[in-house]
Amino acid sequence: MIHPLFEKHRAKLEAALNAIHTRGYWAVYNEMPSPKTYGETAPNDGKIAFEAHLGKKFDLGQPGITDWLGGEQSPFGIDLNVQYPVCDIQALLDAGQGAMAGWQAAGCQGRAGMCIEMLDRLNRQSFEIGHAVMMTTGQGWMMAFQAGAPHAQDRGLEAVTYAYREQSFVPAEAIWEKPQGKNPPLVMKKHFEVVGRGVAVVVGCGTFPTWNTYPGLFAALATGNAVIVKPHGNAILPAAITVRTIRAVLSENGIDPNLVSLCVPAKPETTQALVTHQAVKSVDFTGSSVFGHWLIDHCRQAQVYAELAGVNSIVIDSTDAYKAMLRNLAFTLSLYSGQMCTTSQALFVPANGIDTEVGHKSFDEVCADLARAVDGFLATPEVALAVLGAVQSDATLARIKLADSGELGQVLLASRKINNPEFPKAEVRTPVLLACGAADEAAYMEERFGPITFVVKVTDTGAAIALAERVVATHGALTAGVYSTRAEVIDAMTAATWRAKVALSINLTGAVFVNQSAAFSDYHGSGGNPAANASYCDSAFVANRFRVIQRRYHV
Amino acid sequence: MIHPLFEKHRAKLEAALNAIHTRGYWAVYNEMPSPKTYGETAPNDGKIAFEAHLGKKFDLGQPGITDWLGGEQSPFGIDLNVQYPVCDIQALLDAGQGAMAGWQAAGCQGRAGMCIEMLDRLNRQSFEIGHAVMMTTGQGWMMAFQAGAPHAQDRGLEAVTYAYREQSFVPAEAIWEKPQGKNPPLVMKKHFEVVGRGVAVVVGCGTFPTWNTYPGLFAALATGNAVIVKPHGNAILPAAITVRTIRAVLSENGIDPNLVSLCVPAKPETTQALVTHQAVKSVDFTGSSVFGHWLIDHCRQAQVYAELAGVNSIVIDSTDAYKAMLRNLAFTLSLYSGQMCTTSQALFVPANGIDTEVGHKSFDEVCADLARAVDGFLATPEVALAVLGAVQSDATLARIKLADSGELGQVLLASRKINNPEFPKAEVRTPVLLACGAADEAAYMEERFGPITFVVKVTDTGAAIALAERVVATHGALTAGVYSTRAEVIDAMTAATWRAKVALSINLTGAVFVNQSAAFSDYHGSGGNPAANASYCDSAFVANRFRVIQRRYHV
Repeated sequence: MIHPLFEKHRAKLEAALNAIHTRGYWAVYNEMPSPKTYGETAPNDGKIAFEAHLGKKFDLGQPGITDWLGGEQSPFGIDLNVQYPVCDIQALLDAGQGAMAGWQAAGCQGRAGMCIEMLDRLNRQSFEIGHAVMMTTGQGWMMAFQAGAPHAQDRGLEAVTYAYREQSFVPAEAIWEKPQGKNPPLVMKKHFEVVGRGVAVVVGCGTFPTWNTYPGLFAALATGNAVIVKPHGNAILPAAITVRTIRAVLSENGIDPNLVSLCVPAKPETTQALVTHQAVKSVDFTGSSVFGHWLIDHCRQAQVYAELAGVNSIVIDSTDAYKAMLRNLAFTLSLYSGQMCTTSQALFVPANGIDTEVGHKSFDEVCADLARAVDGFLATPEVALAVLGAVQSDATLARIKLADSGELGQVLLASRKINNPEFPKAEVRTPVLLACGAADEAAYMEERFGPITFVVKVTDTGAAIALAERVVATHGALTAGVYSTRAEVIDAMTAATWRAKVALSINLTGAVFVNQSAAFSDYHGSGGNPAANASYCDSAFVANRFRVIQRRYHV
Repeated sequence: MIHPLFEKHRAKLEAALNAIHTRGYWAVYNEMPSPKTYGETAPNDGKIAFEAHLGKKFDLGQPGITDWLGGEQSPFGIDLNVQYPVCDIQALLDAGQGAMAGWQAAGCQGRAGMCIEMLDRLNRQSFEIGHAVMMTTGQGWMMAFQAGAPHAQDRGLEAVTYAYREQSFVPAEAIWEKPQGKNPPLVMKKHFEVVGRGVAVVVGCGTFPTWNTYPGLFAALATGNAVIVKPHGNAILPAAITVRTIRAVLSENGIDPNLVSLCVPAKPETTQALVTHQAVKSVDFTGSSVFGHWLIDHCRQAQVYAELAGVNSIVIDSTDAYKAMLRNLAFTLSLYSGQMCTTSQALFVPANGIDTEVGHKSFDEVCADLARAVDGFLATPEVALAVLGAVQSDATLARIKLADSGELGQVLLASRKINNPEFPKAEVRTPVLLACGAADEAAYMEERFGPITFVVKVTDTGAAIALAERVVATHGALTAGVYSTRAEVIDAMTAATWRAKVALSINLTGAVFVNQSAAFSDYHGSGGNPAANASYCDSAFVANRFRVIQRRYHV
C-alpha cells in the first residue's frame, strides 16, 4: 500500500533524486515572491499572520508545559514579545520516543511523502516565515524571504531526498538461497527494517533559524527519528511556526504530533541536559566553535553534525575584470553585514600588487579600490538598507567597534551607522575594511563574525595559496575564492583546496557570490575541515541517522 | 579514459552492486577449497607458501624501519617465529599521505578496479592465508580457510561495492544554469572531486585477523584514503601477507605502494600515538570494549568504527523441532570454542519450561538435554577437533577455568580438554554450560569471551524478551535469537530487537547458525547498540570516509 502523500509528491521526489545525482541548477520553491506562485494576497496575508503572533502565547499543544518564555529582541527594534511553552525535557523525550513506532511503521516512502507535504505547507507560509526571519535575525527583507523560506525549504527537500535514496537502497525483504551442491539449497527469508536511531535534537543559530535548521531537521525526520528543535534564544519564532506546521501535518496523517517538538529552555543547563541525554542519538548544531566542541566532547551517546566558526579567505593573484571583481567582492562583504558563515574575512593580496586588464595595481591601490567599491555600492541608502539588514547581536557591534579602532589593522574603510527610517531603532552598519601583514595572524586568523574584512599583504601568490591552505586546515572555512588569469595558479589553488577540503569559487565577477550556496548543486561545508564535520547535503549527512535491523528464518 | 582494471572487473562489480541492492545469496569467492576453483596444486602450494614465512624476516619494503619484531604464539603450539619490520610511525604516515594524491587521481573507478584486483590476488592465496589464520588464531582448518580467505574477501568486496556506489553518485561535473527571467541565464561550471579524508588506521583482532580487517581496510582504501594496518600482536602474519599483496598491485599500477602499510609497534604507546595522530582521519577497530572506548574517547580527530564486546542471547519459548534446535545450538556453542563475537552467551528459558513437539520440557530438562546435545556433538574426536579448533589466549583459558569452578553458576556441562594428535601442544577445550537465575546478572550480563554459556531461568517468555532487550541496550550484542511456535512471541521479540537494534535469527534448526553472517546479505552488527557503532556493511560504513570538494566558475 503506497502512502497517498508519497503518491502525491512522487514526481517532485523523482525530480529531486535526479537533481542530487546531477547537481545542476534545480529548485522546487520559487525564490521570487511572485504573486503567480504565492497568490496575490500572500504578501499581505503573510504579514498579518506574522503580526498575529506578536505579544501572544504561541501554543503548540506539547506535553509537560511548566512555564512560558519569550525575550526575543528584534535587530530592527520592533517589539516581538511572543511567549513560548517551556516544556519538561523528559516529557518531550518520552513523547518523542513514544511517537517513533508509528513513524517507523509509515516506512521510508510514507515518511518522505509526509515530509514533502510539510515543506509544501511551509512554502505557502513563506511570507509569514520571511517576516519572522527578518524580524528575529536582522536580515533584509528579500534575503529573509529567500534564505528563510524557499531556499531553506529546498535545503529541507534536499535532505529528504538524500534520506529517501539511502533508505530505499535497503530491500524490505530477501530470499537467501544458498546452493548446497547436489543437496537442496539452504533457503531463508530475511526482513530488513529501517529504524531511526532515536531522538534527534536540532540546535538552531541566531542568524539563519530555518536555512541552517531544516537540513538536520528533515534529515533526522525522514530517516525515522523523533526531533526536538532547540532554536537560538533570539530566533525562536521561525522555528515555532515550522514546528507547528509539521505537527499539524503529522496529526492529519495519524502520526502522534509529539514526534516533533520545540524546546525553549529556561536556562542553558537544560540544553546541556537535553543534548547529553541517553535517549538523544543525534545532535545537529550551527553556531560557535566553543559550544560546538562542547557538544562533540560531551554528547558521546549521539552523532554530532556541527557547523562551527571558520575563517573564509580569497586569494587575489590577477584578474581580467578588475571592476567586476571589486563589485562582486563589495556585495559579498556587505550582504547581511557580513553575518554569514560563508562571508570572506581575509583577502590575500601579493605585496607587489596584481595584474589586471586595466594595468598593474599595487597592493595599496587594490586596498583603496576595494574600499571605494564597498563605499560606492552602499552609497544609495535604499540599496544599503536592503543589502545590509541590521546587526543581529551586541557582540557583533562590539567587534565592529574594535575593528574600527584600528587595533586589528590599518583602517581602509571605517564602518558607518545608517538610519533606517522604517525601523528607527535598527542597528545598521556598513563594513569595516582593514589592511594588515601576513604575520598579523592574531588579527585575521580568528573568526570575527560580522562585517569585518582584512586585506592581508602576502609575499606572493604562492605564499597566499599556502597561507589559505593553512588557515582552512587549522581554523576551518566554509568557502574559499581565487582570482587569477593564470591556469597554474588556479590549479595550485585547486590542489590546495583538495588537501585542506574547502569549496572553491574561481573568478566570480557576475551575479554569483562566494558566500552563496545553492541547494541541490553546491555542497555547503565540505565536512572535512574544522569549520564543519558535515555537509549540506550528501550521503554521509543521512546514512548514519538510521540503522537496518534484520531478522531471518528458514522457509 | 576507463581504468583497465575497472574494465576487467566491471561485470563482477555490477553483480556485486545488484547483490547489495537485493541482499539475497551472493558470493564471488568460493568457500569450498575446491581444486576446480583453486587448482589441483593449491592446497600444497599454499601450505608451502605459508611454511616459507616461518622463521624468516617478512620484508615489505616499507620506509622508516627501526627494528624487527615477532612473537606470535600459535594456539596450535607450532613455532612461527616470523619477524616483521618495526617502522617509525611518522615515516609511515608521511609516506601514506604522500601516496594519496596519485590514488585520488585514479578516481573511484580506478580505485574500485585496483581493489578488486587485490581481492582476486588474495583469493588465489587462500590456502596460504588459511594456514596463516589457522596457526595464529586457533581456528579449525575449514573455518580458517572459509572465514579467513573467501568470506573475508567477500566482505572486502562488499565494502568496495558500497564505497563505489556512494562515490559514483557524485557527478564529476555539472553545468549550473539558473534562469533569470527575460535576461540571459546565470551559467556556471562546477567540478566535484572525491577526496579521501586522510590516513586510515585499521586495528585488527586476534581471532579474525582478515574477516574483521578487510571491511575497514577496503572501505577506507576504495574511498581514497591511505591505510595503515595495525594487526593484533598474535595474528600479524595474515595481515602482513595481505599488505604485501596490496602493495604489489599498487606498484604494478603506478601507485606508490606506501599508500598501504603494516604497523607492528614495539609497544602499546606507539599504537596510541598512531591512532591519535592529527593525520589519521579514521580508525577501524575490532576488540575489547576497554580499548574501543579509549579510541572513541581519544581519537577525536578521526571517525572511529568500532566493534566491541557484547552479550548475545537467545530467548527459548517453544519449538516444534526440539532435537534440531538442540543440535543447532550445540554447533553454535562449540564452533571455534565460542571465540566468536557472534556466539550466544545467554539462553533465556522460562522457569516453567517450554512446549515442544515431543511434549513439555521442564527448565531442568532443557538444561540437561542441551548439555547432552553439546556433549554428544563433540563425542567424536575428529568432529570435536575440527569444530573447536584451539583456544586463542590464556585469558580465555582462565575464563573457562573460572566457569568450570561453579563460581558463576551451576555447572551443567564441564569443559573437557581434548588432545590433538597432530598438534600435541594445542589447547583444545569443549564448552562449559552453566545454569543460573535471572537475578545473577553479574554472572551472565558481562561478556565472557570463549566457550561459556549460561542457561538463565526467567519468569516467563515476556520477561525473557524484556531481559534480552535490556541486555542488548545496556551491554550490546551482535546477534539475538528466538525459538517459538507462537506468532505473538516472534512479533514481540521482533519489536524488541527494533528498539534495542540487534539482528534476530528465528527458529534456526538447520544448517544456518545464529553466529554466522553472510556477506552481501546479513548486516554484521547493527551499529545501533553498544556492541558496535557501525555495520558490515552499509552506506554509513563508507559514506563518511570521503568528502566532496567542489569548485565553480562562470562559463
